[in-house]
Amino acid sequence: MIVTVKRGADAAQVKRELSGRGLWVTQLEASAGVFFLVEPHSTRIPREALLEVEGVESVAEQPSAHPRVDAQPPVLDVAGVPVGAGAPRVLMAGPCCVESEGQIRAAAEAVARAGGRFLRGGAYKPRTSPYSFQGHGEPALRWLRRAGDEHGLRTVTEVLRTEDVPQVAEYAHLLQIGSRNMQNFALLAEAGRTGRVLLLKRAVGATVDEWLLAAEHCLVHGAAGVIFCERGIRGFDPTVRNLLDLGSVALLAHVLRQPVLVDPSHATGRRDLVAPLSGAALAAGAHGLLVETHPAPAEAQSDGPQALTSDGLLALGRTLGLA
Amino acid sequence: MIVTVKRGADAAQVKRELSGRGLWVTQLEASAGVFFLVEPHSTRIPREALLEVEGVESVAEQPSAHPRVDAQPPVLDVAGVPVGAGAPRVLMAGPCCVESEGQIRAAAEAVARAGGRFLRGGAYKPRTSPYSFQGHGEPALRWLRRAGDEHGLRTVTEVLRTEDVPQVAEYAHLLQIGSRNMQNFALLAEAGRTGRVLLLKRAVGATVDEWLLAAEHCLVHGAAGVIFCERGIRGFDPTVRNLLDLGSVALLAHVLRQPVLVDPSHATGRRDLVAPLSGAALAAGAHGLLVETHPAPAEAQSDGPQALTSDGLLALGRTLGLA
Amino acid sequence: MIVTVKRGADAAQVKRELSGRGLWVTQLEASAGVFFLVEPHSTRIPREALLEVEGVESVAEQPSAHPRVDAQPPVLDVAGVPVGAGAPRVLMAGPCCVESEGQIRAAAEAVARAGGRFLRGGAYKPRTSPYSFQGHGEPALRWLRRAGDEHGLRTVTEVLRTEDVPQVAEYAHLLQIGSRNMQNFALLAEAGRTGRVLLLKRAVGATVDEWLLAAEHCLVHGAAGVIFCERGIRGFDPTVRNLLDLGSVALLAHVLRQPVLVDPSHATGRRDLVAPLSGAALAAGAHGLLVETHPAPAEAQSDGPQALTSDGLLALGRTLGLA
Amino acid sequence: MIVTVKRGADAAQVKRELSGRGLWVTQLEASAGVFFLVEPHSTRIPREALLEVEGVESVAEQPSAHPRVDAQPPVLDVAGVPVGAGAPRVLMAGPCCVESEGQIRAAAEAVARAGGRFLRGGAYKPRTSPYSFQGHGEPALRWLRRAGDEHGLRTVTEVLRTEDVPQVAEYAHLLQIGSRNMQNFALLAEAGRTGRVLLLKRAVGATVDEWLLAAEHCLVHGAAGVIFCERGIRGFDPTVRNLLDLGSVALLAHVLRQPVLVDPSHATGRRDLVAPLSGAALAAGAHGLLVETHPAPAEAQSDGPQALTSDGLLALGRTLGLA
Repeated sequence: MIVTVKRGADAAQVKRELSGRGLWVTQLEASAGVFFLVEPHSTRIPREALLEVEGVESVAEQPSAHPRVDAQPPVLDVAGVPVGAGAPRVLMAGPCCVESEGQIRAAAEAVARAGGRFLRGGAYKPRTSPYSFQGHGEPALRWLRRAGDEHGLRTVTEVLRTEDVPQVAEYAHLLQIGSRNMQNFALLAEAGRTGRVLLLKRAVGATVDEWLLAAEHCLVHGAAGVIFCERGIRGFDPTVRNLLDLGSVALLAHVLRQPVLVDPSHATGRRDLVAPLSGAALAAGAHGLLVETHPAPAEAQSDGPQALTSDGLLALGRTLGLA
Repeated sequence: MIVTVKRGADAAQVKRELSGRGLWVTQLEASAGVFFLVEPHSTRIPREALLEVEGVESVAEQPSAHPRVDAQPPVLDVAGVPVGAGAPRVLMAGPCCVESEGQIRAAAEAVARAGGRFLRGGAYKPRTSPYSFQGHGEPALRWLRRAGDEHGLRTVTEVLRTEDVPQVAEYAHLLQIGSRNMQNFALLAEAGRTGRVLLLKRAVGATVDEWLLAAEHCLVHGAAGVIFCERGIRGFDPTVRNLLDLGSVALLAHVLRQPVLVDPSHATGRRDLVAPLSGAALAAGAHGLLVETHPAPAEAQSDGPQALTSDGLLALGRTLGLA
Repeated sequence: MIVTVKRGADAAQVKRELSGRGLWVTQLEASAGVFFLVEPHSTRIPREALLEVEGVESVAEQPSAHPRVDAQPPVLDVAGVPVGAGAPRVLMAGPCCVESEGQIRAAAEAVARAGGRFLRGGAYKPRTSPYSFQGHGEPALRWLRRAGDEHGLRTVTEVLRTEDVPQVAEYAHLLQIGSRNMQNFALLAEAGRTGRVLLLKRAVGATVDEWLLAAEHCLVHGAAGVIFCERGIRGFDPTVRNLLDLGSVALLAHVLRQPVLVDPSHATGRRDLVAPLSGAALAAGAHGLLVETHPAPAEAQSDGPQALTSDGLLALGRTLGLA
Repeated sequence: MIVTVKRGADAAQVKRELSGRGLWVTQLEASAGVFFLVEPHSTRIPREALLEVEGVESVAEQPSAHPRVDAQPPVLDVAGVPVGAGAPRVLMAGPCCVESEGQIRAAAEAVARAGGRFLRGGAYKPRTSPYSFQGHGEPALRWLRRAGDEHGLRTVTEVLRTEDVPQVAEYAHLLQIGSRNMQNFALLAEAGRTGRVLLLKRAVGATVDEWLLAAEHCLVHGAAGVIFCERGIRGFDPTVRNLLDLGSVALLAHVLRQPVLVDPSHATGRRDLVAPLSGAALAAGAHGLLVETHPAPAEAQSDGPQALTSDGLLALGRTLGLA
């Protein structure tokens, strides 16, 4: 945003007024007059309110680069469950990977008991190493859905390849785009074409603007809505797996008014920090949580160390008032 | 931590047991046998508990590099106000800079009304530019203390130079080491020699380990205790001023059992995000907040855009149950 | 790597010997004896050399997670042009986007004149915004190839979607996987299946290990080889577009012995820094450069500000001894 | 920088002209007309050149925040040795820590033989842990100077405390401010008051702007000049100790025209990468190197793993054409 000062007006006074409203400004001068450049980490103030400040001549704004995201309603309906501002906070939980029908049924029971509304579980897994287990594919989707249906849970699972989109959309209520694919535009388009609500995880190296634009890709191609999910970004401290960015969550929830969830399991990688960061996420404005749980973490084929036990999930659900 | 597997034991089974307990392990093999290297972002499990796992021969740990920090009690007393686990959450608030006696008195009144226990305000200011206002020095200390006393508030202020330590210690109940000086070891030592409790802000590029070791410097030189304060680290997204790292706060509060505060004002730079991130900080485990407020932000000589108004502070205090 | 000390040996002396060889070690103790944990930023020393150190009992290493990458020859042949250690340094240049037949022919002439061996140009463009120009598709591929052939240049271009792989492979000698798709495993597999050499750009948030594992995905699925390309990672300073990580380039070139290029155009975004960073990249060990150039940067549909003019490219080629 | 477009001019054409000159611009509109906001990672173009672009009405710039830095000559004289643009590249080398008179004399001989002009060595060491060796103090300064004098080398050493400044200034030709103290403004002022040239290392979390402003602090207080030294910033990949930012070095050398050195030893922590990154640093524009070397790295009390041997230093000096 650029604020132009009226000829003859007191620039210092204008600056004070802008600062007082929460704007960080840099003053630039030219023959054409005095300008204030508003820094991006300023409080969001409507242009109209700034035009009323004495001494302000004009306020130049960049048109939004993501009009469809801006036009999203604050609450999205996912197969009958509302997600977003004003709706009850939603718990989505389940194992990293759907390993067997027994496992996912046990998980579903635990999720339901803990107050969860969605069952998560991977059928197609993006794995950093090509030698790691890649998921059971369609049978896993079937087990997931059946287990969810048994307990009145909606299902959410990741889709990795464009050609899998129809199949995944058949079984899952909510299609997840993983963080590694946040800018896989072919996948965003194909998933968008389903006309469904998508869950879009943030890439570990993405700015908020890039994340919003990735959502715009989904919406342009037909998605009914996009729910954002922060799962930790890259940081320089190895004591947590990733660096949970709750400032961005608060920005999405309170300033941009977008539905946003937090995945505290990937964010920290530490089971001993999942509960406090879940509480923090909700306090920051997150509309729900995506949590890893496993009926027997020691048997998990992936991410066992960060999975809550069924009892741990129940305790979390109770602490957060979800169970 | 290195876990050694007994000769003849089932390494895969040991690995499952460790994962099940929340440990991320890497398996290494040598003629001497099988070792598991435990990654730093693992759940903290006592060595004794690991020795009980079947097939584990020994568990090697590095002795703590900061025994005095580890030995701190969970609650520190600052001039009669307890800060830490179990104590009531504490609000410290005030202007970036003590600008006049009138200003700090107005701020003190607002802080007291909002449920604050400490009045903050800068007398000596570290400024990125040498041409910025550097603070009023001793008169500001005097005004700060008098304003605090008037409202039953303790005072906290930053000390910048070793030679100012005695003077600052005379007026302030709690001496703050700013983030730019987190590894100014001469200052840590001098402040430690006062025998007082210190407030140690994290540097924007410091790991948690470096932060703990900086506290160890203070304690070695005689500090009665160190309260940690997270204020945002360096990030790659310009939409917030800094990147608030609540994972580290949760780690300090819940795993390392250290008294820890959060400064949401510097963390975000955005007045519109201070309230949600304050709530998030407390939910993550922070034992209190350090917040910037100004009776008239438009008149502030520094950091006006991120200062809460007196009404904003009152609302915050009420929301958080402090007022 | 974990080094175990012989019972009765002088651990302090072993530590000195390891440090002297360039290893950063952490000492851990257990009933089973003394262990040294070798930090990842240590000089690479063969296990055998460490076993010869007096007092060392055993050296445990993790088996490599990317055996196919490790087995790559140091030089790869791309349609008759060798790329890698020992081969002449290779310049790949061209516009961000193939905009017209005339434009790419002019670019090809400039690239050939500057000593380039490869012509680059986008036919399918990954764009952060869905409203930006996405490339001319197949016609652009045709123009690119024809322009390259005219000047004896090989061609390199990015492939975005699995279904485009055969078509792109028909026209391009070298298929590029862009940074946003570095962990789009479906695309890595499909591109690998062509049996061709691939150019794999690093994602802005990827560690070197993740990059190597992405290459392993390509090789597992049949790629003839993978050339790595560093193009800048996420940093906290806005004065450059990205942060060029030449430490990783040196690691790949000198320690891991992989063919590696650098893209200084995206790394900095600043035309005024392209030349010095090109020289730096080659000095660090890069086997070639991928540079953006445009016959008329003012007319460029994308990335014009970072494109060298034809004269700028010629000057670069001469300075680096390529022209 | 803000560029204002003349009423009635073709904004799209102005944008093309700006892009063609290397400027990344964002277009903003208001009742007052059309503005282009120039992004910080744009090529540096003089304001006058932009005013000549057809359709440009005015160009608003922020006055420089560091006029004294801008006014520095491109070459600084340090006790007879010129450092900066146009001067011969300078090698500064020596051990992390001055451990004994014998050690520093052996190091001095090796440095001289390798073509070095400055002998480095720590007498007062900033140590992350309070339990690490802190240096031998004044005796070490004396040994350092004597060893340097013997071989015609200038000396450079770090000063940690304001009260040590006069003593360090007595022995050292060049006073170093370490990265941890880059924003210890009391120390910058005291060191500046000596009227000497200072070596200012960049903090691991500092932007280029903060670094320049820290230098301005030194100059305001009387420093004869400031030589910048990049030594690696915080990164997310543990395979190097720090992340060497040669983009910033190129910016300082070529755009800001400041004398700048690189410390490849701390940047990587890996002895096996010191040579390639030294070459890269010089190619990027660095005017010299600050390298750690030790006559017997295995005996080093600190940083042994990253120290070159005397032979390694000689090889480096020869490769770089310094010996």
